[in-house]
This record gives sequence, structure tokens and C-alpha cells, in this order.
Amino acid sequence: MILFFAPHTCALASHIALEHVGASYEARKIDFKASQQRSADYLKVNPKGRVPALVTDAGILTETPAILAYIAQTHPEAKLAPLDDPFEFAKAQSFNSYLCSTVHVAHAHRQRGSRWADDEAALESMKKKVPQAVGDAFRLIENEMLEGPWVMGEHYTICDMYLFTLAQWLEADGVDPSSLPRVAAHREVMSRDPVVRRAIEAELAA
Amino acid sequence: MILFFAPHTCALASHIALEHVGASYEARKIDFKASQQRSADYLKVNPKGRVPALVTDAGILTETPAILAYIAQTHPEAKLAPLDDPFEFAKAQSFNSYLCSTVHVAHAHRQRGSRWADDEAALESMKKKVPQAVGDAFRLIENEMLEGPWVMGEHYTICDMYLFTLAQWLEADGVDPSSLPRVAAHREVMSRDPVVRRAIEAELAA
Repeated sequence: MILFFAPHTCALASHIALEHVGASYEARKIDFKASQQRSADYLKVNPKGRVPALVTDAGILTETPAILAYIAQTHPEAKLAPLDDPFEFAKAQSFNSYLCSTVHVAHAHRQRGSRWADDEAALESMKKKVPQAVGDAFRLIENEMLEGPWVMGEHYTICDMYLFTLAQWLEADGVDPSSLPRVAAHREVMSRDPVVRRAIEAELAA
Repeated sequence: MILFFAPHTCALASHIALEHVGASYEARKIDFKASQQRSADYLKVNPKGRVPALVTDAGILTETPAILAYIAQTHPEAKLAPLDDPFEFAKAQSFNSYLCSTVHVAHAHRQRGSRWADDEAALESMKKKVPQAVGDAFRLIENEMLEGPWVMGEHYTICDMYLFTLAQWLEADGVDPSSLPRVAAHREVMSRDPVVRRAIEAELAA
């Protein structure tokens, strides 16, 4: 498999999952500074012009929740999702959907506001609200969703990898992690996991 | 089961799925005009203050991609998702993730811009870009993702219900459906499905 990633993006979640299950894969960097995600070659891989994209023998997958579910389902021995319980599996999907549709989107208004408005004043206005929008979303996770110690309770899952990835951005988004003690503690534990460290180090070295 | 919905929202996708599999459920309307989604009672059901929410015997589910996957997995005889093929299942999840994180979000900047900015000028600026942002996302669906006749090709799935639901909003979002002939044809076929009509009529009559 080939994982297309860029450092400091949500692709890290899929990278951690691949590393965790011991998959045979190559992580290939897309250079955002050179706008490589918009190159003709990469648009053939992912016409959305984004990362992550996972090239598998069966075809190409995009969107973090789908890639994470795929890695969990194809490596059942790693027990990275409650595969045998449709309700619990849906709860994991629900958490990951919230991350992609609300948390990541709130964050994206800081640097990717041009997706939704053109004039400079509107982009500035969006940036100003990021601490509140991202903070509100993480407070909901802190108070209602993160069961503890892991997202889904006693079992470490793909949700933990994805939450950790987005929680990396808190400070830059103007949210004080100390106001989110449970999320902060989760991030701290995750950041010491050798698998997580290998994925991050590989991305930064690429 | 109880499905909490509001008319003209993405809850329709889950409503169609429940109706399609012949589930035993009650559809309960949340009155957005009265801000019932922010009432103390409803926040106990869904602390996000949004629809849909599906109350099941096992607990409460939110987020359309998760609810749709749950309905498909608990009603395998309806064959609403490629449950036995992790890659194909992930492809369905990927499509639905794109709808929730990109298509629905682009649409939401027309009337829900206050999630991401406060001042009136910024909200106006966001509204102005909705036709382009929603149009771009649907053009990608038209040209790259909708396999035809159904989203995933020969098999009707939960992706079709979700795509149809969001395609209902094209005109209001300033996108001409005739510029998207394949999406428009899909919407037309869906709109004639008696199951789809029952779900829509039940929502409008509630």
C-alpha cells in the first residue's frame, strides 16, 4: 500500500493506524508548499487534491474515517474497532464523522478559509472565530464523548488515533489544552506511544 | 427506534433508510423555527443540538454516515452496503464522509455561517461563495464519484439516499442541476421511489 500524506495534516491518523497494525506500506510525502496536491499526477490519485489517500490492491481510498475503518476491518487481529457489534461500530464511525465534519472543518477556517469566502476581511473574520468554534467542539468531546481512558472506553481504537491527530492543532488554533484536561491527558499518553512517535518522526523526516 | 428529524435537513437520508428496510420506528419532528434543537430535553438526546439522532435499544446514534452504516449493518438482507467487502464498504464510507465533511459543509455556509464568523459582512461573503463551493463539490461527484446508475455502480446503497438528500438543496444553493446531468438524473429516479416519497411526505406532514 502507499499512503500519500503531508506533515501536520489529518493524514497522520491513517499513518498511525498503518504503523500500528504492522501493515506493509510506503508513506509518500506530498509537498503542500509546492502545491503538489494540485499537480496533475496527484489529482490522478485523488481528484480532491487533498491528503490522505491510500493506494491499495483493490483501489484508492480517501477520507480519514473510511481509511481508518478499512485498516481496522482488514486487520481484525489488531482489534482497532468493535467490528462485531454494529451499534458500537457505528458509535466509532459517529465519533470519526464528528471529527471530520465539525472539528476539522472548524480548524480549517484558520488557514483554508478561501474554500468558503474570497475577500480578505471575511477570511480574517473566520480566523477570529476559530478558537471559539474549535474550543466548543473539543469541549463537547471533553464533556460528552471521550469515555476514558480511550475514546470508546476501555478499548483503544481508530478513534484515538484520529482524536490525537486533530488535538495536535489545539495551540495553533488558539485553544488552551489545559482547559481540556481529559483531552490533554489523552494526547499526552498517545504522544508517548512508540507507534505514534514512529509515524510522526517518519513524516517529519520525509 | 426513534428518529429525531427536521424537514429539509440531512435527517432525510436516515429516514429513507429506515423506511427502506421496513424498520419499526417513530419519526419525531424537532421544530427548528422554535429552536427546539437547543432545548434542554433535546440536548439530553443529542448534546450537539442537531439532527438526525437515532434512539436505539443499545443507545443513541448521531451523524448521518454512522446512522446509515448502522441501519445497513443491522438489516443485511436489505443489501444497502457492501458489508462483506472491506474495500467496497470503505468506498461507501468514503463517499458519505465526503458528503458530510465537504458537501454539507459547503452548503451550510449559506444559512449557518454564524458557526464560523460573527460579522454580517463575513456571513454575506460566505453566502456569495456557496454556489461555487457547492457546485465544485457536486461537479466532482458528477465527474469522478457517481459510478452510475447508482453511486456505487449497479447496487443501490445508503450512499444514494444521502446523495439524494443533499442534492435536494442544489437550486437553493444557486447551483443549476442541469449543469450536473448525471446527478440530476439520479435525483429524478430517487424522487419517484415510493419509499423516498413516503419519507418526504411523512416529514412534511409532521
